[in-house]
Amino acid sequence: MNKIYCVGVGPGDPELLTLKAHNLVRNASQIAYFRKKNTLGRARTIIEKIIHKKNVYEYPMEYPLTTEVDFQTEEYKKTLDDFYIKCCSDIKVLLKKDDLIVISEGDPLFYGSFVHLYEKLKKDTPVIFVPGITAMSGSWANAKIPIAMGDASISIIMGIQDEKDIIKSLKASQTAVIMKIGTHLKKVESALKKTNSFNRAIIVEKATMIDEKIIPLKNYKEKKAPYFSIILIPHEVQR
Amino acid sequence: MNKIYCVGVGPGDPELLTLKAHNLVRNASQIAYFRKKNTLGRARTIIEKIIHKKNVYEYPMEYPLTTEVDFQTEEYKKTLDDFYIKCCSDIKVLLKKDDLIVISEGDPLFYGSFVHLYEKLKKDTPVIFVPGITAMSGSWANAKIPIAMGDASISIIMGIQDEKDIIKSLKASQTAVIMKIGTHLKKVESALKKTNSFNRAIIVEKATMIDEKIIPLKNYKEKKAPYFSIILIPHEVQR
Repeated sequence: MNKIYCVGVGPGDPELLTLKAHNLVRNASQIAYFRKKNTLGRARTIIEKIIHKKNVYEYPMEYPLTTEVDFQTEEYKKTLDDFYIKCCSDIKVLLKKDDLIVISEGDPLFYGSFVHLYEKLKKDTPVIFVPGITAMSGSWANAKIPIAMGDASISIIMGIQDEKDIIKSLKASQTAVIMKIGTHLKKVESALKKTNSFNRAIIVEKATMIDEKIIPLKNYKEKKAPYFSIILIPHEVQR
Repeated sequence: MNKIYCVGVGPGDPELLTLKAHNLVRNASQIAYFRKKNTLGRARTIIEKIIHKKNVYEYPMEYPLTTEVDFQTEEYKKTLDDFYIKCCSDIKVLLKKDDLIVISEGDPLFYGSFVHLYEKLKKDTPVIFVPGITAMSGSWANAKIPIAMGDASISIIMGIQDEKDIIKSLKASQTAVIMKIGTHLKKVESALKKTNSFNRAIIVEKATMIDEKIIPLKNYKEKKAPYFSIILIPHEVQR
């Protein structure tokens, strides 16, 4: 029976693919990936120089909603669920021919979209996951931040959370990573100030990509940050 | 000026090295790594089939303390600090000849030991970090656990922490990873029961290695776990 290999392709630098991911992509006859309409796709961009374009059938799964709409509405949920059902149905057709490589930026099980398909497919379809370098690992490597040492615990926080929940997570651990900042920047900054962690925070835009930026948050003068920027809060004693 | 490349070699499966790590290890003339006395070393074992043994000078940095002693004693701290100072001094001699590749299991800035040397070296020695696949990514890939979806936050918790701090971290987030379990297993299980997360917890021993084990925690009958085992607590609604 043919299998799905759901493969992490890392944060952006193509050299950060694993050997396993590289081999799977190079030898694939069919590759699928999520993308926004009118873009090549984040994961697809990372493998641009690796993929054998002539020999591969590409199946881009294009999100039906490109603007940021309210995640809470029934209409949004229904549209997205119909989209995932369609993707699963298409994937099952592809699997009749050969294995399918689904590429995912970063690590597929760490906030990756394929999980929504996996929940629907796993009953009757074999899926193998290949882990990838996360954007947060890429961020702390290039910022040279020892995010955690010894017995320190880490909170991984989403920018969309309420300020009080962000504060609760910051207080529960010695170091933290805040992801999906976007328009939540000012709220996140406020939470960091209230927990005395603002002055040691670092913001990383586009980790490991050519236009990566690494800036102490206190020197960051933007009103919002790119959606995929990451804030690192190192251990207090380290700086 | 010659550089140190501190390179993550992933959780155990040699196929999970990145292309960048693989190239650096294959082309190295000098490689350093931490290890316990009388072992090959965890990171060194991972690259056994990749390293060009004939052409490489190997510098194993052997921990002076092999048994678990009290981390809080002054004697322990002094012995370890002297060891780190000696490593830095040896490394500076090696750097006069060529670049040095320091390999680290998992991701070097995620609980890696090289950070202790980096703090002493960074003033006058160029260091480049290459991120690696963490053991936790290896664990959730092979256990097929979507550790985080959407807006869920994650707590990364160390088994050595007090039960009340473990509970605090578990309550602060929707999903969690507990590392360095070892003799702390019963305390961790107690914290998981008190937060209603015991029944969905999965324990992974030796992630991605040949003798990997993945077991629902409620079926795990051991009194303690290997030090490097990991407990994953997926999102409540997922199972």
